Amino acid sequence: MNNYVEVEGKYRITCNNIRKINYFLEENGFKEKYRVVEKDIYYNHPCRDFSRTDEALRVRIRKYIGQGIVKIVLTYKGSRKILAEGVKARKEIEVELNNWRKMDKILLSLGFQRVASFVKERIIYRKKDVEVTIDHVYGLGRFMEVETNNRSIIENIYSSLSECLQPVNKTYLELCLETQKCRDDFDDS
Amino acid sequence: MNNYVEVEGKYRITCNNIRKINYFLEENGFKEKYRVVEKDIYYNHPCRDFSRTDEALRVRIRKYIGQGIVKIVLTYKGSRKILAEGVKARKEIEVELNNWRKMDKILLSLGFQRVASFVKERIIYRKKDVEVTIDHVYGLGRFMEVETNNRSIIENIYSSLSECLQPVNKTYLELCLETQKCRDDFDDS
Repeated sequence: MNNYVEVEGKYRITCNNIRKINYFLEENGFKEKYRVVEKDIYYNHPCRDFSRTDEALRVRIRKYIGQGIVKIVLTYKGSRKILAEGVKARKEIEVELNNWRKMDKILLSLGFQRVASFVKERIIYRKKDVEVTIDHVYGLGRFMEVETNNRSIIENIYSSLSECLQPVNKTYLELCLETQKCRDDFDDS
Repeated sequence: MNNYVEVEGKYRITCNNIRKINYFLEENGFKEKYRVVEKDIYYNHPCRDFSRTDEALRVRIRKYIGQGIVKIVLTYKGSRKILAEGVKARKEIEVELNNWRKMDKILLSLGFQRVASFVKERIIYRKKDVEVTIDHVYGLGRFMEVETNNRSIIENIYSSLSECLQPVNKTYLELCLETQKCRDDFDDS
């Protein structure tokens, strides 16, 4: 997921339980790869308004459940191109860091401002080069993302599960800012 | 060297050979700790002029000679306070990265501009909490830096070696920009 154009479908999960989705993934050969808890901190630029330029700068602290590993990543995202309902392409550049608090201090010293932070539980499933992610964003609800280079796969998965999914073009950041309901309680120790 | 106020003396080495300095360090119990080759890339801010605000943002690629280790560090430096001739204090925040090219791309995407890059060979000597560095900056010449919390140690070392040393308040970045002689040939493989 480094320095490439990301194509993903993103959906709010509208069914009360996600057994139907789990069953679909299992039946179609998707394997659970790992579970993580992630805290994301988003920043605005000192002299550009990212909500206008549609860019994003994020520090992510990712904790692998059951493995005791914490990975810290700084990500820049360019503006989105909407390819279809719920399907977007976006330039991403990522670099791994050894300390998120120091990166936060550097960004604040450079005039970047924190705009939001939130925590999600994430289960990642994979089948060849298709990645499906089930997210529980604290305060916001459950979502599914599908990531692959092949747009038709994304559309096929959506049509199979459409009764449980509602396409979302907005980012979690935008949804958090809109609702003001996201929570960022996280233990990175 | 993380997130603290750096107090250092910096001097241009004016003697033709540095045997006198090496002899002084040995006689006074300094031990050579390691040798590195460093490439430093400096950036200007998208909407602040760091040459006016006296801040700095640097990506450093450090290669440990004989050990095959490469360490990459992003450093923010606040404005300098000059404490004595050649002695300055400065806030520093550092974070380690796994890839300098991606950090460079993120910074350029955010509107930071590269202002200079240069390479130096560096030998680090230490005695308790005093660090002495002998630098050969490609295209610029030889320098000595003394770093410790105790200003009087810095001043004592300077007076012992004053015939070989000329205090410098400028950074390598400023000297490189002034002279336009610095070189950045570096193999980070």
